[in-house]
Amino acid sequence: MRHFLVVLIALCVCSSCVASSKPVAEPSAKPANKRSTSEIIEQSKPSEWRQLQPSNTMYMQFENGEVVFELSPTFTPEHYANLRVLVANKYFDNLSIIRVHDNYVVQWGDINYDNDKAKSIGKAKEKLDMEFFVPIEEASFTRLDSKDAYAKMVGHVEGFPVASDGKKVWLTHCYGMLGVGRGNEANSGNATGLYVVIGHSPRNLDKNVTLVGRVVSGIEHLSSLPRGSGGLGFYDDPKDHINITSVRFGDDIPESERTTLEVMRTDSQSFKDYVYSRTHRSSDWYIDKVGSVELCNVGVPMRDASK
Amino acid sequence: MRHFLVVLIALCVCSSCVASSKPVAEPSAKPANKRSTSEIIEQSKPSEWRQLQPSNTMYMQFENGEVVFELSPTFTPEHYANLRVLVANKYFDNLSIIRVHDNYVVQWGDINYDNDKAKSIGKAKEKLDMEFFVPIEEASFTRLDSKDAYAKMVGHVEGFPVASDGKKVWLTHCYGMLGVGRGNEANSGNATGLYVVIGHSPRNLDKNVTLVGRVVSGIEHLSSLPRGSGGLGFYDDPKDHINITSVRFGDDIPESERTTLEVMRTDSQSFKDYVYSRTHRSSDWYIDKVGSVELCNVGVPMRDASK
Repeated sequence: MRHFLVVLIALCVCSSCVASSKPVAEPSAKPANKRSTSEIIEQSKPSEWRQLQPSNTMYMQFENGEVVFELSPTFTPEHYANLRVLVANKYFDNLSIIRVHDNYVVQWGDINYDNDKAKSIGKAKEKLDMEFFVPIEEASFTRLDSKDAYAKMVGHVEGFPVASDGKKVWLTHCYGMLGVGRGNEANSGNATGLYVVIGHSPRNLDKNVTLVGRVVSGIEHLSSLPRGSGGLGFYDDPKDHINITSVRFGDDIPESERTTLEVMRTDSQSFKDYVYSRTHRSSDWYIDKVGSVELCNVGVPMRDASK
Repeated sequence: MRHFLVVLIALCVCSSCVASSKPVAEPSAKPANKRSTSEIIEQSKPSEWRQLQPSNTMYMQFENGEVVFELSPTFTPEHYANLRVLVANKYFDNLSIIRVHDNYVVQWGDINYDNDKAKSIGKAKEKLDMEFFVPIEEASFTRLDSKDAYAKMVGHVEGFPVASDGKKVWLTHCYGMLGVGRGNEANSGNATGLYVVIGHSPRNLDKNVTLVGRVVSGIEHLSSLPRGSGGLGFYDDPKDHINITSVRFGDDIPESERTTLEVMRTDSQSFKDYVYSRTHRSSDWYIDKVGSVELCNVGVPMRDASK
């Protein structure tokens, strides 16, 4: 199988980057800049990891499996609040995945949203101004040394990929990011229709649609769905719609059902070392050691704390 | 449905970019820099399009559908020649898709390649030096005005996304690109094991693995496959392997079975106009008109000449 173990040295991208082992206290025998990604994760300190906050963690169950999202109230407090109201009302239960557009997005919501069969949104707001920008806070913004096609600078804040003009930061459309659909009016998105990026990152959508979070596990259940044959990847036939069983926040489900994933802090030294290892490839397999990395190819390490 | 017709204005990325209408002779009423992508395609000249050459077009049939590839002998003459020998021997018929790694690659080949049950490769070469670089030819290199994380400059040659150091160009790992798996030895790839990029473009693989072509249709049959649960996305259970019925080049199948897709010439004025429209978004939906585009978000327009 050696011949096939090939293109794979490079992995550990985005939400697939889940390490299984707990941290080890011993310092590395290798210099920091020669350690592999897995060595950096193994040798990191417990304080360099954080658990997912139950109130920011959203669980979607559907027939193909469970998808877990981390929301970001830091960037989008109003959308987060509206989503909490919708989820508390069980708004998404028995709605459907209605669109799977190859190399682009999976989208779900109420197909009757614009007609008189629309499901009630209860006390959720119907219109919301878009939310993109937060001021740069030096302490939490980990800048990435990378040329970026779309922004002056890029990096990470609280585990999320961001771009910046030097004054403010905004979330970016990397693989696995969760966004809020909207119509032509800027304030027409309200989190009743959501999408996840499942292709090459469509960064042109940055600052055009509000991003509210990211997938932390289960994206393969979305990305492997049959593509819609209708325009824009919508499922033409309602029979193809995929039923969503339930959507809940972590603080509304028993502790035993919550994810045990934890996320490497992006303002930690280990994350800096990890980015270095993603930039300068140390494996013998690499003939060209690369020397650079693009924002959406960084990923953020996660691991299962229960293992 | 207005509310859901949302994130989609931006589409037409990569191999999903197939227009259905034939060119129209009338000049545009709008200035060139205000035309939409579909207007540019409609108003292009017949001479700005090319048919796929049957000898460079490879058809893979498997249980989920047909995938069509365009090969590039310009960049990889030796790998192309080896692949022709393998395909002529029906090497891939009844081999399998053995790996589907989320946000990365789909891979196929002989699971017994390294043992005594290996399928004969006939007169194909067992070892091949990697092939990356061709000299820049001004006439065919269409440079893209874009900051790139991985290379000094980027653009297109003969419909393929490329990067360059100013002296030579090489193919890049955008979504849908077809590559040749290899082991640790640089010359261990020989086109018996192939992969297609199905996630955010892993550009770190550029100049590390030989790319030989790209998917022109049917990538959705690969990208929607169930992800492998084994290490690196391999299917753990051989029962999950997906049988490949046949692989043929276009000049070995009846003309009636060949694709009728044609590709916009990337050295044409219409392609320049198209790139402009991908860079400066003219649709009212865009609040931020973007003003930049990243190589793997450009895509190359295709259309069905039979329609």
